[in-house]
Amino acid sequence: MELLTLPLIISFKKIEVAGKGSLIVGESEKEIPFPVKRVYWVEGALNDLEVRGNHAHKTSVQVVVAMKGAVRIELESKEGETFSFHLKNSDEGLLIPPMYWRKLFLEKNGSCLCFASKEYSEEDYIREYSVFKQ
Amino acid sequence: MELLTLPLIISFKKIEVAGKGSLIVGESEKEIPFPVKRVYWVEGALNDLEVRGNHAHKTSVQVVVAMKGAVRIELESKEGETFSFHLKNSDEGLLIPPMYWRKLFLEKNGSCLCFASKEYSEEDYIREYSVFKQ
Repeated sequence: MELLTLPLIISFKKIEVAGKGSLIVGESEKEIPFPVKRVYWVEGALNDLEVRGNHAHKTSVQVVVAMKGAVRIELESKEGETFSFHLKNSDEGLLIPPMYWRKLFLEKNGSCLCFASKEYSEEDYIREYSVFKQ
Repeated sequence: MELLTLPLIISFKKIEVAGKGSLIVGESEKEIPFPVKRVYWVEGALNDLEVRGNHAHKTSVQVVVAMKGAVRIELESKEGETFSFHLKNSDEGLLIPPMYWRKLFLEKNGSCLCFASKEYSEEDYIREYSVFKQ
């Protein structure tokens, strides 16, 4: 887990099933480089590009995958480094290390899948941008 | 895990975010009643209602969620009991215990999310229906 300090695109294994589509795999501690404690899916933005997220995690590592429609993700470190990613394919994920302020912009009716290394704990969230930047 | 012997619909917690959509949560050993070892997503059926699955697991428990479009799932126990489910909402999942033959029928361009209690092992699959029914 020590190396999970920079945002990183993860490529998932995509298995094509002739004439039937595909199967994409994320295994705990393999493609997803941590034990997956929590999976959640963010969906149903009523308007195009509504911002979601708007918080940072103190310790939880997350991986985000665009499942339906594309998602744009903007990250900012405490030091002010910024990153922008545009996820369009469900065989790639963005790993977000702890202590990055994130903004997610989903397409209308889009959804994304998120894997987290920790169970839910409100104490792990920083919800005030000014607090994050202190 | 002893109780996971019958198919079961799981309701996930759906958190509405005013004006922005929703967030649906599946936590290992909570909504998903086992430690999640593997997550995969089945997608992109080129034709409507192509059959996927067509196997049973000896020990792995799975939960299936319709993420994009609906999915119909037909299950059959070794003894010949049959079950049919039609999943349409991403806040419900079907728990499939071990030793159920499964057929998944995805809508065109649909996708479903699957949680598994075991890492991938070809030995855990029964891929021949006649072998399953023996």
